[in-house]
Amino acid sequence: MVQFSKRVPADGTDAVGAILAAAADPSVISFAGGLPAPELFPVAEMKKAVDTVFDEHGREAMQYGASRGVTELRELITKRVKEREGIDSKVENVMVTTGSEQVLDLVGKAFIDEGDEVLVEDPTYLCALDVYRSYGAKFVSVPQDDQGLRVDALEEALKNHPKAKLLYTVSNFQNPTGKTMPVDRRKKVAELAAKYDVMVLEDNPYGDIRFEGEHVPAIKAFDTTDHVLYMSTFSKILAPGFRLGWVLGDPKVIDKLTVLKQSTDLHTDQLAQWAVVEFFAQNDINKHVDQISALYGKRKDLMIEGMKKYFPEGVKYTNPEGGMFLWVKVPGVTDTVELFKKCLKEKVAFVPGDPFFAGKPEPGTFRLNYSNMQEDKIEEGLKRLGKALSDAVNENK
Amino acid sequence: MVQFSKRVPADGTDAVGAILAAAADPSVISFAGGLPAPELFPVAEMKKAVDTVFDEHGREAMQYGASRGVTELRELITKRVKEREGIDSKVENVMVTTGSEQVLDLVGKAFIDEGDEVLVEDPTYLCALDVYRSYGAKFVSVPQDDQGLRVDALEEALKNHPKAKLLYTVSNFQNPTGKTMPVDRRKKVAELAAKYDVMVLEDNPYGDIRFEGEHVPAIKAFDTTDHVLYMSTFSKILAPGFRLGWVLGDPKVIDKLTVLKQSTDLHTDQLAQWAVVEFFAQNDINKHVDQISALYGKRKDLMIEGMKKYFPEGVKYTNPEGGMFLWVKVPGVTDTVELFKKCLKEKVAFVPGDPFFAGKPEPGTFRLNYSNMQEDKIEEGLKRLGKALSDAVNENK
Repeated sequence: MVQFSKRVPADGTDAVGAILAAAADPSVISFAGGLPAPELFPVAEMKKAVDTVFDEHGREAMQYGASRGVTELRELITKRVKEREGIDSKVENVMVTTGSEQVLDLVGKAFIDEGDEVLVEDPTYLCALDVYRSYGAKFVSVPQDDQGLRVDALEEALKNHPKAKLLYTVSNFQNPTGKTMPVDRRKKVAELAAKYDVMVLEDNPYGDIRFEGEHVPAIKAFDTTDHVLYMSTFSKILAPGFRLGWVLGDPKVIDKLTVLKQSTDLHTDQLAQWAVVEFFAQNDINKHVDQISALYGKRKDLMIEGMKKYFPEGVKYTNPEGGMFLWVKVPGVTDTVELFKKCLKEKVAFVPGDPFFAGKPEPGTFRLNYSNMQEDKIEEGLKRLGKALSDAVNENK
Repeated sequence: MVQFSKRVPADGTDAVGAILAAAADPSVISFAGGLPAPELFPVAEMKKAVDTVFDEHGREAMQYGASRGVTELRELITKRVKEREGIDSKVENVMVTTGSEQVLDLVGKAFIDEGDEVLVEDPTYLCALDVYRSYGAKFVSVPQDDQGLRVDALEEALKNHPKAKLLYTVSNFQNPTGKTMPVDRRKKVAELAAKYDVMVLEDNPYGDIRFEGEHVPAIKAFDTTDHVLYMSTFSKILAPGFRLGWVLGDPKVIDKLTVLKQSTDLHTDQLAQWAVVEFFAQNDINKHVDQISALYGKRKDLMIEGMKKYFPEGVKYTNPEGGMFLWVKVPGVTDTVELFKKCLKEKVAFVPGDPFFAGKPEPGTFRLNYSNMQEDKIEEGLKRLGKALSDAVNENK
C-alpha cells in the first residue's frame, strides 16, 4: 500500500486542474488559461542567440553549472532592476531559479515550519497558496480594495500575528485581480515590514507589461532594512518554456536559498540562461516588451468594450493597466462553481474565484485571461459569457 | 531578524562545499569533482538538433508545457528502458524532471513526513542524504560488501523497521563506491520490497556508462508489484547542463509526483526536452555512449595502474566496471578530514568518505573521480596522493 506524506493532496482535490481540463474542449472559448501570446515569441531571434551560445559557450552550456546561476545573467538582472525598478543590488543579491514558481517553493522551504503564519492578500495567486500549504502554512488573509492590499488592514494583521513569517504580495497587475498597489502603499509596506520585522516576498512577474498609466517602483526599492525579497521571471517578457525566474535580496538569505536549491535541482538549465544573456546582447528587449504590452492592451480594451456591451447590469470588473488578467464579480451569485458549469454549457470558461482565496471565498467572483485570446474570439466569448451571467442574475432575482 | 525554518542547514555545515572550494585551486590535481568529460559533449550535433527544434517546434519550445513533460520525450524514455533494461512501461508511467536531483526532492516531498525511516546503503550518494534529511527522515543504514547492498542485512533491517517508507539504492557503479549489484540481489530486492511492502527508489544515472563486464537489468525489471520507482537522467550520456531527469513507476505515484512538481517548478524546460528528442532522432546515441564509456574506461585503467604503482601496501580500492567514481580505504587512518588536509598540502584532492555515510563513517575512506581527469594528470595526481598516503600510513604505524 502506497503511503504518501501529509503534504500530498488527496485524490480529487485538484479543482483547478478539472476546470482547465473542461475548458480545453476546442468548442469552448476559454478565458481560463494564463499563457502569454505565443505569436509574439521571438523564435528567429532566439534561434540566432542560441546558435551563438553553442558557438561561444557550447561546452559551458552543456556542463553542470553553479546553483546560484550564470554570473552574466545575474549581472544582467541587477542592471535591469536598477533601470526599471530603482533597486540597487549586486550580483551576490541574485539567484537564478527554475522559473519563479521555484522561488515560491524555496522560500516556503526556507521559512515555513508546520503551523507558521503567512500573510497573503485575499484573493491571491493560487499556486502560491498551494506551495505554502504544502509546507504546513496557516494563512492570515489581508483584504484588498480598488488599489490592492489595504495597508491599514496589513498593520492590524501584523499586530495580531506578531509571529507571522512572511507577507506574500503581487504588487503589479495582481494575479488574479489585475490590481496595482500605488506608491504610497508600497512605501508603507516596506516601513511596516521593518517595524514588525516580517519578511516580504514581492512577486512581480507582470510589471513590465504595462499598457496604461505610470510605472510604479517596486516595494523593494523602498526597503532599507533587508526585509523584502523581490522575485520576477523571464516568462512573461520572453519564453515561459525556458523556466527562468530569479530572486533578489539579502545575501544571507540568498545563500541559504542557494543551499536549498542545490538539493532541489542542483542548478537551473545552463543553455536557457546563456540563451537569455545572448538574446539581450543581440536584441532590444524593451522594444519587444513594448510589442507585448501593445497587444495585451488592445485585447484588454476589447474585453472592457465587450463586458460593457454584454454583461448584465450590476456586474463589476477591474480595468487593469497591465498584465494578463482581470477580475469579475457577479452580484447575487452564491455558488461560483455552479456558475462555471452554466457558462460551460454556453461554451465559455473562466477560473472561478474560490481557489484564489486563503480566507472565505467571495462568491460570484472569477478571473478572465486576455493575453492569449485572439481578438476575433473576445467578442463572441463575452457574448456567451454575458448570456450565462444574465441567466444566473435573473434566476437569483 | 531572519528566522529560517528547521530545514535550513546551520552556517558552516557545508563541509563538501568547503572541500570543493579548497580543491578548486588550479595548482591542485582534484579527483574531488563529479563532472562528465566536457570534451565529449556533442556540441555541433546539439546545435543542429536545437536549430531543428526552433524551425519545427519553436513556439512550443518557448511556451509553457505540461508538468509531466513533453510526450515525445516520455515515449523515447519508455522505448529506451525497454531496450536497455528490460523494463515494460507506458508513457503514463513516466514523468520528466529538472534533473534527477528533482526526483530525489519530489520523492522526499511525496513520501517522507518528519521522523519517517528511510533505508540507505552505507555509504551512499550524499545529495540524497541531504534531501531526505531536509524532509526530516531518520536513516537506517544497510551495509554493503564487495557486491554492493547486502540483501541479508536488508531483510534484517526491513524486519526491524516495518514502518520504513523507502529504500534508496544506486544499483550500477554506485556513487561513491563504484560497486554494482549482481542480478540475483536485484531479484531479491524486488522480492523483499513486495514482501515487506516498502517502496524502492532505484537510482541509475551511470548504468549506460559500462566499459567492462556484462550489463545487468534494473531492479525495476523484476518488480511485478509496483514497489519500485526507477529514476535516471540524460546528464551522464548527453548534457548535465540541460537538467533533464525522469522517474518511472506506478501511474498512481507518478500522478502525485506530478502534482508536487507543478508547485515546485511547474514543468521542465521545454527547449531542453525537445532538444533531446531531436538529438535522438538525428544521432546514434548508443555510438555516443560507447565513446564516453571507452574514454572513462581508459581513465579508470590508468587510475588502477597508478594506484598499484604509488599507493602504499594495504590501501584498498574498488575497480568499477563503469561509471565515474572509485572508492579508497586507507587502513589505520582515524580522521579522514585530517588526511584530506595532508593531501591538499601535496596539491591533490578527493572527497572524504564521511558525508556519504548515514550511519557511522568508516574512517580512512574517500571517493576519487576519473571521468573528468585528463590522462596526463592521472599519474602525477596519484603520485602526489601516494606520497601523502604513505606519510599518513607511516605516522600511524
